[in-house]
Amino acid sequence: MLLGKPYLIFLGDVVDAVAAKTGFGARDWAPQDCLGQWRMPECRVNLGLPEMGPVAAAANGARSLLIGIAPPGGRIPEAWGPALREAVEAGLNIISGMHTRLEDIEGLVTLAGRHKVRLINVRSPPKDLPIGTGVKRTGKRLLTVGTDCALGKKYTALTIAKALQLRGIAADFRATGQTGIIIAGSGVPLDCVVADFISGAIEQLTPEASADHWDVIEGQGSLFHPGYAGVTLGLVHGAQPDALILCHDPTRKHILNNPHMPMPALKLAAARYLEAAQLTNSNVKLVGVSLNTSALSQAECERALSQAEHELGVPSFDPLKTSAEAVIGNLLAQ
Amino acid sequence: MLLGKPYLIFLGDVVDAVAAKTGFGARDWAPQDCLGQWRMPECRVNLGLPEMGPVAAAANGARSLLIGIAPPGGRIPEAWGPALREAVEAGLNIISGMHTRLEDIEGLVTLAGRHKVRLINVRSPPKDLPIGTGVKRTGKRLLTVGTDCALGKKYTALTIAKALQLRGIAADFRATGQTGIIIAGSGVPLDCVVADFISGAIEQLTPEASADHWDVIEGQGSLFHPGYAGVTLGLVHGAQPDALILCHDPTRKHILNNPHMPMPALKLAAARYLEAAQLTNSNVKLVGVSLNTSALSQAECERALSQAEHELGVPSFDPLKTSAEAVIGNLLAQ
Repeated sequence: MLLGKPYLIFLGDVVDAVAAKTGFGARDWAPQDCLGQWRMPECRVNLGLPEMGPVAAAANGARSLLIGIAPPGGRIPEAWGPALREAVEAGLNIISGMHTRLEDIEGLVTLAGRHKVRLINVRSPPKDLPIGTGVKRTGKRLLTVGTDCALGKKYTALTIAKALQLRGIAADFRATGQTGIIIAGSGVPLDCVVADFISGAIEQLTPEASADHWDVIEGQGSLFHPGYAGVTLGLVHGAQPDALILCHDPTRKHILNNPHMPMPALKLAAARYLEAAQLTNSNVKLVGVSLNTSALSQAECERALSQAEHELGVPSFDPLKTSAEAVIGNLLAQ
Repeated sequence: MLLGKPYLIFLGDVVDAVAAKTGFGARDWAPQDCLGQWRMPECRVNLGLPEMGPVAAAANGARSLLIGIAPPGGRIPEAWGPALREAVEAGLNIISGMHTRLEDIEGLVTLAGRHKVRLINVRSPPKDLPIGTGVKRTGKRLLTVGTDCALGKKYTALTIAKALQLRGIAADFRATGQTGIIIAGSGVPLDCVVADFISGAIEQLTPEASADHWDVIEGQGSLFHPGYAGVTLGLVHGAQPDALILCHDPTRKHILNNPHMPMPALKLAAARYLEAAQLTNSNVKLVGVSLNTSALSQAECERALSQAEHELGVPSFDPLKTSAEAVIGNLLAQ
């Protein structure tokens, strides 16, 4: 799945910044790809990008209108129809991570055909995926894994990829979820791939590369989640990672939305991920631990980081608060 | 997915008995549901069922024409079109496990609408599946798991379900693949479920039941297969099994079609499956081992069975050659 960059980010009539996480993610991690923002009069969220409409954005080189919001339920309101049609008429692709398919918006398909632009539903699964084989590929791979969902696997991978690139090391962030795909401009939406092709999709996403190249792969779900562990295991096998970073939120007492499912101990989680990854790469190593300490004070954060280091014997960091240098150093020392 | 029984089994123009495994499976495991067979003049395979056309079958109470063959590639040849239309005109549903969708056969949709019958593609994934939660359900569950694909998980589950029923114990075979679904008359084709819903699909397939009821669930894939382990793990979690039977082929040296992937030792395989299953059922136990000894002599078979018992400390059997009684006894003693 390859998107067209740069983007004009559409914020519609959204009033809640949390619902605009796609837009914030693109702005923070792919600023060079974000030309401007386009907001309806009711909009109360501001990315701080230049305001422009689709005609001006196209004139400035924009290739796509990126829907930067994901309201609960993921439906595209009818009120956005005129704006989306206007963008197509200005010659922009439309990129959407919503559940509503762009094809179902009145008149959009015909208009897109006439203006030769693409309607890109980031949630749509790719076709003709292979079955995973586990055959060793050249190049190096790092995968972020987690004790649970939604605790920083994407941000950790983005941070590591950027830190490697800043050191002059060839590295690519490989996206496996919709926000990551929008940031990277390509990727595979793993949550909607058909079950038999999970690891095959990842093998295709991170192909053979030169021996010193790092693919930094965005993790999904958790081996300890009663609904998503299958996705996670297929991702681990397809990634055949050389290095793992374990992501964790020290304040979370149980698996998200599943109060009956206890949070695993860090040591157990690390052991299970290494065990799983060994099926396709017997040399896999844990190189770091990434904590989401957003709910902790500075002192609590420091204590949590040093405790995690002590438990696992690898460097720790919080990608939003502390430096990744110790983890990067450990990664490159392997 | 609920099919309409009993079946008239369509064998088309098939000449190779291996390609008719769906038909043989239905005949062997659901004989009460197989009214007759219908063969084109070129057909060289014989299930030994009464020969009849769709009109006679409908008059005898048949509800569906079951396509009992799966030629390589899974395409429905054009030459079958007239026969399928004739069956619809006789008032039969059509049940197909082929890749070609029944809707793509000329005239069939219109005809089915007129005769108020269903076109059932067993490979189509169910809609509106839930996400797995791991919440404990009442009733008991046995799951067959394997060191690899295609070595007897379905036959083992069918054998155990039948043996329980013969003892007067309430038990249902729960199908997770197309042949199993056709035998059971219902089930979920797990290989085409979207990744996020693997375990949720199994939770829905084996709902709450009375405390002494056994669901005997057909396993899929293997935790040791580089392409399918994600499917297997989601199935294990969704099943929340009380009991596992490990299936194995002692002559297989590596994972099917993957010569670079070694076969796991029985003890390791059992340990990993128990570890995986404990996430949603901490009381899970290995109750038996099922060997596919089709390539072994009688003496070799006996040696393999006794060696497997010795390695795992549970009774062993070959569902096609020896009695399941010791495994059933161990299951019921838990």
